[in-house]
Amino acid sequence: MERPIDYAAAGVDLARAQAGLALAKDLIRSTHNPNVLSDVGEFGGMYLASFPDIQAPVLVASIDGVGTKTMLAVTQQHFEGIGADIVNHCVNDILAQGARPLFFLDYFGASRVEPSAFHHVLKGVAEACKAVGCALLGGETAEMPDVYTNGAIELAGCIVGVVPRSGRLPRPDIRPGDALIALGSSGLHTNGYTLARRVVFDVLALPPDEPHPALSRTPREALLATHRCYLQSVAPLLEPGGPVKGIAHITGGGLVDNVPRMLPEGCSALVDRSTWSEPALFRVIREAGVADDEMRHVFNLGVGLVLAVEPSEALSISEHLQAHGEQAWQVGEVLSGDREVRFSG
Amino acid sequence: MERPIDYAAAGVDLARAQAGLALAKDLIRSTHNPNVLSDVGEFGGMYLASFPDIQAPVLVASIDGVGTKTMLAVTQQHFEGIGADIVNHCVNDILAQGARPLFFLDYFGASRVEPSAFHHVLKGVAEACKAVGCALLGGETAEMPDVYTNGAIELAGCIVGVVPRSGRLPRPDIRPGDALIALGSSGLHTNGYTLARRVVFDVLALPPDEPHPALSRTPREALLATHRCYLQSVAPLLEPGGPVKGIAHITGGGLVDNVPRMLPEGCSALVDRSTWSEPALFRVIREAGVADDEMRHVFNLGVGLVLAVEPSEALSISEHLQAHGEQAWQVGEVLSGDREVRFSG
Repeated sequence: MERPIDYAAAGVDLARAQAGLALAKDLIRSTHNPNVLSDVGEFGGMYLASFPDIQAPVLVASIDGVGTKTMLAVTQQHFEGIGADIVNHCVNDILAQGARPLFFLDYFGASRVEPSAFHHVLKGVAEACKAVGCALLGGETAEMPDVYTNGAIELAGCIVGVVPRSGRLPRPDIRPGDALIALGSSGLHTNGYTLARRVVFDVLALPPDEPHPALSRTPREALLATHRCYLQSVAPLLEPGGPVKGIAHITGGGLVDNVPRMLPEGCSALVDRSTWSEPALFRVIREAGVADDEMRHVFNLGVGLVLAVEPSEALSISEHLQAHGEQAWQVGEVLSGDREVRFSG
Repeated sequence: MERPIDYAAAGVDLARAQAGLALAKDLIRSTHNPNVLSDVGEFGGMYLASFPDIQAPVLVASIDGVGTKTMLAVTQQHFEGIGADIVNHCVNDILAQGARPLFFLDYFGASRVEPSAFHHVLKGVAEACKAVGCALLGGETAEMPDVYTNGAIELAGCIVGVVPRSGRLPRPDIRPGDALIALGSSGLHTNGYTLARRVVFDVLALPPDEPHPALSRTPREALLATHRCYLQSVAPLLEPGGPVKGIAHITGGGLVDNVPRMLPEGCSALVDRSTWSEPALFRVIREAGVADDEMRHVFNLGVGLVLAVEPSEALSISEHLQAHGEQAWQVGEVLSGDREVRFSG
């Protein structure tokens, strides 16, 4: 008798995905707050749109993925980090519009959904959500052996936050003379991994798990450093009409493409590269033979966030950020120009 | 001299992705309405949370993907359909909570982002959004040759809608005796494609593009039929306190897993299979040797949505739905029981 034709034989095991979800239910519920009106497993997550402290509330939404950082997570079997990465990436994206997070939904795809890996990703997602008061409102898991390469996983997520209409960023009054404050990144964050993996593991052929003298840790640890979340240190600075006029989250495209996203017509940015030393991981990649122009377009080079601020406030803002655990320094200024970045130093 | 190490050499071409997005900007803007306060390309999309007609507004959010229906779209080079699929899937998911859509964000991943394919997917997304008054508020494109199999694409999306608190579904007053109304599906919608493709193209080895006598069209056309959107026909029935008490969207898990999602404790569902004939595509798959239990768990079997309604209103609701272009019929009723589905007929 022939083997019956079923989903498992076609490569998809619904029971395995269900087992992963069952493990995660308590984690998901631990992020819920009184605004959440739904439980795990409904067709849509429900969130009461009641913002009594916010005048003219504006919802701010962003969707993103962690890119091929998942490939490193798979080879190291370390999954909680990428869960935090996708949440923090999304939190920073809407912080750039001045918003604080309300809720998050995750999308986990894989050639094969391993309950343990899925559970650890969800744990990282849930803990990063809890840390910023964000409800994990929904999610989707897809097992697709034809779409993903063997063993590969995909992790994306969507966040919705809220900002008072008068507190939206960037503000149109960014002008030449404003100071640019950089906040240090923790590593590559979630961009440039296809190139970085190629350079580190193929071109340089560094052993992934041997401590590297310049990196002061193993290459894999350096590459898997969690995407830093800037909400807690930056949010106190975001009073409507306050000194912060714009925020750029330095993701794919680097400083070159992301700083201009906050600039109005008639403004450019001058970035003084002598104000900071590139962290060792970027130097290692650069010295393998990646051109400077490519480095600037693909990597954050040690800068995770750039604030445009009133110049008279630049020093006190840097001090506030440093007191809250950030590396923060004045990295340049706004010039007149055509929404581009010029480098000096 | 060696070839420089860059992103393109590592398999990622940022320019190609940018070209696809440039083509799509006008499509995206065409979905915007006065509540949308952001333009294409900001870190987060902004949507004014002003719902003057809705008492105690509740946001309803869902994230989902179209599964391996993308594999068929790729081989047929027909991409607009999957764009509409993901939007309609999400619209139906939040309709099951009683919500109408506000905004949508898409996630497009691929081993290689072809601008033309990406453009057509976005066209399908934008047109389906426009058809239901939903703003396309953001999106993300990821080119990841290491994660996706050669030529494969991934399409996911996240929707946010709104419902008055008193209009939330399912209502807790669903009770034994309530009628279950089925609405016909247009095909597989977005579930069961890994199994269906295996059966149709491998087990039965049907020629994808030759008209099939039982299907009255080619297998590929039958498999690519667009996920039906039920918002326009069902929304007029959703007055708070009205006759519709619950909605189940029949997605992965079929009638067996999805109908119970709207049932309160103490209720089960009786589904009378003699009330409809399975559409030809499901019969073709079944007759290839897929067991009935598997068919019921993997496919919608011709039912895209099930409403739980006051029994006295069942006939007039079916007539309303038919007048709005739906196949609609009483498919069963609510019984007392333990949140499961029993089949008869």
